[in-house]
Amino acid sequence: MANMHLNLFIMGCGHHKAAWRHPRSSVERLADIRYYEELARLAERGRFDAVFFADGHAAGNIADGPLWTLEPLTMLAAMARATEHIGLISTVSSTFYTPFHAARMLASLDHISGGRLGWNLVTSMFDSEARNHGLEAMPSHAERYARAEEFANTVLALWDSWSDDALVRDRQGDYVDASRVRPVHHHGEHFLVDGPLTVPRPPQGHPVLFQAGASDQGRDLAARYAEAIYAVAYDLPSAQAYYSDLQARVKAAGRPKVAIMPGLVTYVGSTEEEARRKQRELDELLPVDSSRRQLSQFIGQDVSDWELDAPVPELPPLEAFSGPKGRYATILRIIESERPTLRQLLGRLAAGGGHCTMVGTPERIADEMQRWVEQGGADGFNLMPPSLPDSIEDVVEQVVPELQRRGLFRREYQGRTLRDHLGLARPGR
Amino acid sequence: MANMHLNLFIMGCGHHKAAWRHPRSSVERLADIRYYEELARLAERGRFDAVFFADGHAAGNIADGPLWTLEPLTMLAAMARATEHIGLISTVSSTFYTPFHAARMLASLDHISGGRLGWNLVTSMFDSEARNHGLEAMPSHAERYARAEEFANTVLALWDSWSDDALVRDRQGDYVDASRVRPVHHHGEHFLVDGPLTVPRPPQGHPVLFQAGASDQGRDLAARYAEAIYAVAYDLPSAQAYYSDLQARVKAAGRPKVAIMPGLVTYVGSTEEEARRKQRELDELLPVDSSRRQLSQFIGQDVSDWELDAPVPELPPLEAFSGPKGRYATILRIIESERPTLRQLLGRLAAGGGHCTMVGTPERIADEMQRWVEQGGADGFNLMPPSLPDSIEDVVEQVVPELQRRGLFRREYQGRTLRDHLGLARPGR
Repeated sequence: MANMHLNLFIMGCGHHKAAWRHPRSSVERLADIRYYEELARLAERGRFDAVFFADGHAAGNIADGPLWTLEPLTMLAAMARATEHIGLISTVSSTFYTPFHAARMLASLDHISGGRLGWNLVTSMFDSEARNHGLEAMPSHAERYARAEEFANTVLALWDSWSDDALVRDRQGDYVDASRVRPVHHHGEHFLVDGPLTVPRPPQGHPVLFQAGASDQGRDLAARYAEAIYAVAYDLPSAQAYYSDLQARVKAAGRPKVAIMPGLVTYVGSTEEEARRKQRELDELLPVDSSRRQLSQFIGQDVSDWELDAPVPELPPLEAFSGPKGRYATILRIIESERPTLRQLLGRLAAGGGHCTMVGTPERIADEMQRWVEQGGADGFNLMPPSLPDSIEDVVEQVVPELQRRGLFRREYQGRTLRDHLGLARPGR
Repeated sequence: MANMHLNLFIMGCGHHKAAWRHPRSSVERLADIRYYEELARLAERGRFDAVFFADGHAAGNIADGPLWTLEPLTMLAAMARATEHIGLISTVSSTFYTPFHAARMLASLDHISGGRLGWNLVTSMFDSEARNHGLEAMPSHAERYARAEEFANTVLALWDSWSDDALVRDRQGDYVDASRVRPVHHHGEHFLVDGPLTVPRPPQGHPVLFQAGASDQGRDLAARYAEAIYAVAYDLPSAQAYYSDLQARVKAAGRPKVAIMPGLVTYVGSTEEEARRKQRELDELLPVDSSRRQLSQFIGQDVSDWELDAPVPELPPLEAFSGPKGRYATILRIIESERPTLRQLLGRLAAGGGHCTMVGTPERIADEMQRWVEQGGADGFNLMPPSLPDSIEDVVEQVVPELQRRGLFRREYQGRTLRDHLGLARPGR
């Protein structure tokens, strides 16, 4: 049976929006690099494939809680030196970087980490981000994806601009074999890049390319370029639907299967009840008034007089809702399948929203993860711990050993590079 | 007496172009981050103010020897974690980055290093670099400096977008005091940046701003913004001329004196003769044919039949030379003041060219450094070791103790930040 893949998606004090309010939270340490080094070492102790950072270029609504703090590429350089095996994945936006910057920094990090770098290619979303990088507004979705494809091609070409054996270092002769370092001469619609890169070919050939295609265009880009994919799946059926669609597109692009890892929020307890208690403890930290106001906005009706610990009333069907459909659909789905109280619904929305949430004992959660992998919904998971480090300690100490006992997850690293962990061949040049 | 400042300018295997050819060179380690960490620790053992990286965005003529390898910002993140006190300075070009990228990465590194970051602002020079970042050619000198000034203002404004006390972290209330995180709303000729930054205010308030203004426009920019200055000075009179001109411009800009550090190439030996031998050993590693060809180009006459170990013949005066004047003037100056053989001239040009070169015993070199500082030529030096780590080990182990005995250089670090080392106040906000 294929090994499962596990990523730790690091986000502030955890993916639950109220996690920073917990008395034991690390909110005072968010600008302390040692906090992130410790998290990477914890994930490495659990033999995870990688840690992963999302990224954003606008401060956002920070009164409510931390969003971004340090910049991911600089963090990963430090984390590379605090770990030995674990992969290190950073989001880099094709809308805000030049391909030369991206190729150069990622190649440098691949050297610094000894071949453990991954790049999550995103096109970014918000006008507030565009307006920090010289644009009045975000380019259209189509325009962003056209740029992203040219961007990916250019970055790959830059990594290929040095052959693996270009460095000769002949003290009586040449430093490099100049015929093995070639210009790129890319003159495309969005970019002009002569090359070659200043950095010799990365240890992995190419740092591993991740993508999280959701839209039609995003899925096609992922199918053509991604070597591993992050997904959003609320439950197994939606995971299966995404999985089979994506692998079909990958196959149509003439490429071998790629690992697909849906996001996963877990609350682990030695009993079902303890797990629920951990979830409730975080949910109860949410400021009720502002959460109510937000939900009222999301569903287009005033919820200020709904009872906090009573079941949420039924809502009008999706067709009858005129606001943004995506989030409304998620809310309908949570209400229909989980019959939550208002407090539970607010908590679910505050922790990974449309992502799968598993609450229970290590055995129960391992059962579910196994089912997803065996029934064609996932090749592994991008773990979104609601609180850090607590929730991921629970996974490392309780769920991982259970997966290992079942032969579903590695007991030791078998290789040194992120490509090794993901079973990906190294592209030669 | 004011303390002298010392920077280690790290460049490949050393600043001598043939250093990588030495049997003991670290040429095999240029993509190994541990090499740079060791150099930073060595400089920290010598109580240096900082290590410093130049930067370039084009591979250059790499057959002859290494130029760039890893990317400096990612290197400095790792080096920050391998050291405790020493400052860490990276070049970042205002022509190729957006101010938001620069402000964000430098702020992040200032947090990662606990307040030890410096930024050397350059405008870059070569068309080959421009053509890696989407430009057909470099903008004009005037255009680059206009952009650089707007760039510096925008970066400073982004660092100021968070007040020092913006982070409230009240678990029962707000994460930040929203009134202390303000947008920038910069809509200038070159940049549109709304802000605020995603990174909280850097520990130093502002990472220390370095500049190396040489042209008239460059000197004015340095006078208005730089908190420390790198200079090129062939000898004490030219150092004094630059020093007094620059400090006059600083004063005219209404700012206090800034530390000026000329580049300095040293060959240290326990005897004068041993020092000369070390210089000769590196010079003899230069490939003679290509060095002759290059010199022929520089001076516009064929030197292929000049004798290698005979004195260089006199050259036509500067006025009679129609090629690039700067380098020709340097060559004339070396010939006039040092009466070198052809091999010596080739060696001098291969190691820091127009920068001051001191060859001799630790006492002799300390004498010279003291003279420069006492006679208004410098506040310290940007050391450009011809070979690494050998030449800088010699400085740390032999020259620094001599300077310390004379009370000219710190025996222990007195503070924790680069601002502390340079005696610069922290800008509050």
